[in-house]
Amino acid sequence: MTGLTYEVLNKDNLARTGRLTTAHGVIDTPVFMPVGTAATVKAMTPEAVAGTGAQCILSNTYHLMLRPGPERIKKLGGLHTFMNWPGPILTDSGGYQVWSLADLRNMDENGVEFRSHLDGSVHLLSPERAIEIQHLLGSDITMVLDECTSLDADMDEVARSMQLSLRWAERCKAAFAERDGYGLFGIVQGGLHDDLRAQSAEGLKDIGFDGYAVGGLSVGEGQDAMFRVLDGVVEHLPEDRPRYLMGVGKPADLVGGVLRGIDMFDCVLPTRSGRTNQAFTRRGALNLRNAQHREDPTPLDPECACPACSNYSRAYIHHLVKAKEILGAVLLTWHNLQYYQDLMAGMRQAINDGGLEAFASDFHSKQKEEPAEQME
Amino acid sequence: MTGLTYEVLNKDNLARTGRLTTAHGVIDTPVFMPVGTAATVKAMTPEAVAGTGAQCILSNTYHLMLRPGPERIKKLGGLHTFMNWPGPILTDSGGYQVWSLADLRNMDENGVEFRSHLDGSVHLLSPERAIEIQHLLGSDITMVLDECTSLDADMDEVARSMQLSLRWAERCKAAFAERDGYGLFGIVQGGLHDDLRAQSAEGLKDIGFDGYAVGGLSVGEGQDAMFRVLDGVVEHLPEDRPRYLMGVGKPADLVGGVLRGIDMFDCVLPTRSGRTNQAFTRRGALNLRNAQHREDPTPLDPECACPACSNYSRAYIHHLVKAKEILGAVLLTWHNLQYYQDLMAGMRQAINDGGLEAFASDFHSKQKEEPAEQME
Repeated sequence: MTGLTYEVLNKDNLARTGRLTTAHGVIDTPVFMPVGTAATVKAMTPEAVAGTGAQCILSNTYHLMLRPGPERIKKLGGLHTFMNWPGPILTDSGGYQVWSLADLRNMDENGVEFRSHLDGSVHLLSPERAIEIQHLLGSDITMVLDECTSLDADMDEVARSMQLSLRWAERCKAAFAERDGYGLFGIVQGGLHDDLRAQSAEGLKDIGFDGYAVGGLSVGEGQDAMFRVLDGVVEHLPEDRPRYLMGVGKPADLVGGVLRGIDMFDCVLPTRSGRTNQAFTRRGALNLRNAQHREDPTPLDPECACPACSNYSRAYIHHLVKAKEILGAVLLTWHNLQYYQDLMAGMRQAINDGGLEAFASDFHSKQKEEPAEQME
Repeated sequence: MTGLTYEVLNKDNLARTGRLTTAHGVIDTPVFMPVGTAATVKAMTPEAVAGTGAQCILSNTYHLMLRPGPERIKKLGGLHTFMNWPGPILTDSGGYQVWSLADLRNMDENGVEFRSHLDGSVHLLSPERAIEIQHLLGSDITMVLDECTSLDADMDEVARSMQLSLRWAERCKAAFAERDGYGLFGIVQGGLHDDLRAQSAEGLKDIGFDGYAVGGLSVGEGQDAMFRVLDGVVEHLPEDRPRYLMGVGKPADLVGGVLRGIDMFDCVLPTRSGRTNQAFTRRGALNLRNAQHREDPTPLDPECACPACSNYSRAYIHHLVKAKEILGAVLLTWHNLQYYQDLMAGMRQAINDGGLEAFASDFHSKQKEEPAEQME
């Protein structure tokens, strides 16, 4: 495996800092990757995303395969050119969205046939096609296709599904064209069962990947259960490869994940929250629709240097939100992404200084809930 | 009158370039002012607006008086601080929106009582209150309150209304606190009747204002009728004061207005069009939803240096528009505002070079209609 270079720089208990080198640049880990589902990080320009310190974004194979289509993106120069993001891009395999968004038609050993949620057209996603699509997009980091099981599946079902995902992972590895600076990640499945998770991780290591993701979490199991799975699974992942917790999460999830040895995260939360009036701050979350903000001249977070905090009051953002102005979504998204990047940078610094435990204590002591929504 | 300094720099037939100096900076005329209705130029940051070359924006008294309220904006440092626009701001008087948006309750010599379109609350707008609100906002350029008449009003009704607007203009002048760098503009009314327009203009000159607007146009009368009114009215406006054509218009309206001696314009068209998939270009308007754009790697306008044209293809913007992504509205708005500013800068240069007629011919020869919308 010479696709992606990963170097661990410093360790602090299970947590570590590292440097992942891709064809489109370096990623300092632990990293949070903003989500650009449809080839755009919603409400942001790529320059603004990069300005927050984000080094890598995630984009969704499922959405792009349906619209505008991977062949079209390839023809237009690949995803980096198409969306004007010159840095590294990680794409998921489309599996999760097929299960959560599409109308499932047929699922067997070969792959999954589904109807588009956009226009009802029928598509096939197989391990080979998932790899081909991500190749057409030009992803720096490609994810294997896996099957997702629901939280209430019994252990036999979770085991069967995990084994299928292992076989698909092997087919993905065979289909993946190795190139310097491009890599393929496996995905550990196994639900909330430590032994299945361990079996999945060992199976993936035998195949050999550039990095190892933990999938199927943050789907309603709760933070405690998620952390328990991480506590069990991380020891089965190789030290010298990046570990990626998919689709996670809240700020406290990131802190807990890094403490447990996770290097990479992605989540729609900071961007989606920005479009639903929420701001994450060093003192907890705010709902900007709340009437308490309407004459507040202070910024969202006085310790934040983002444009929203440098130039605007909570009162102004409250006004934008009430008036349903696009700039409200833009400023809140911008701030949330800055906050997430600042949090990751703070953790990287703390790990390098050997003080992540103290950083985490300080983080938790400052978080507090905002009073419940008030009526105007 | 020492509120606003206006200097005519060069003349080319009726057209002229000039420099209007306000408390918050200089405005080079002829100028196009982007509209920031609710204290935001929709879908744009103020930095981006300024980056297009815009020197002055317009904001709407009607919207701001209802939400968040002028007293609140005053408390938060005034409109410039509130919305982070450090340059000049012109505010309208609220009259036009009261007639077009509100539920009119009562209208008499004193003013107009109306119900808010937002929450049904009852408000009074009088000449004195219109001036007070704009003072609270901190507008560099304040507009008098006028009555708007519909296109189908008969001449007696238009005359009565114009006379009322003149009496209101006098009350506005009396209520306006003169300060260096701040000015009050009168508004010429009189519908499509040259003699009423002339009477209105002369009446306003007798009162004396920092600038003179032509109101009640671009309300469905058509470009020919609008230009005929301008042909008649401009000679009645003082040479040494700026002339402002309110709420206008399409690119060709701006060219025709400048040729007829107009110095200032505002319109929601470039911003609204940006949110409804339209791009204005040097070769005419484009509808970015059209399927013809879906694999087009060229920019909206190859002669434009805006971020949308520098970094993105028509195919990408088509994709954003189809996916209803906020960035689509952002990029199209950005480009449209840049195009409008480039058009005005081109006209200023042409006037200074004595070549506005040639500029206008060239402009018209390049404009062409895009093929009608195609189905995908």
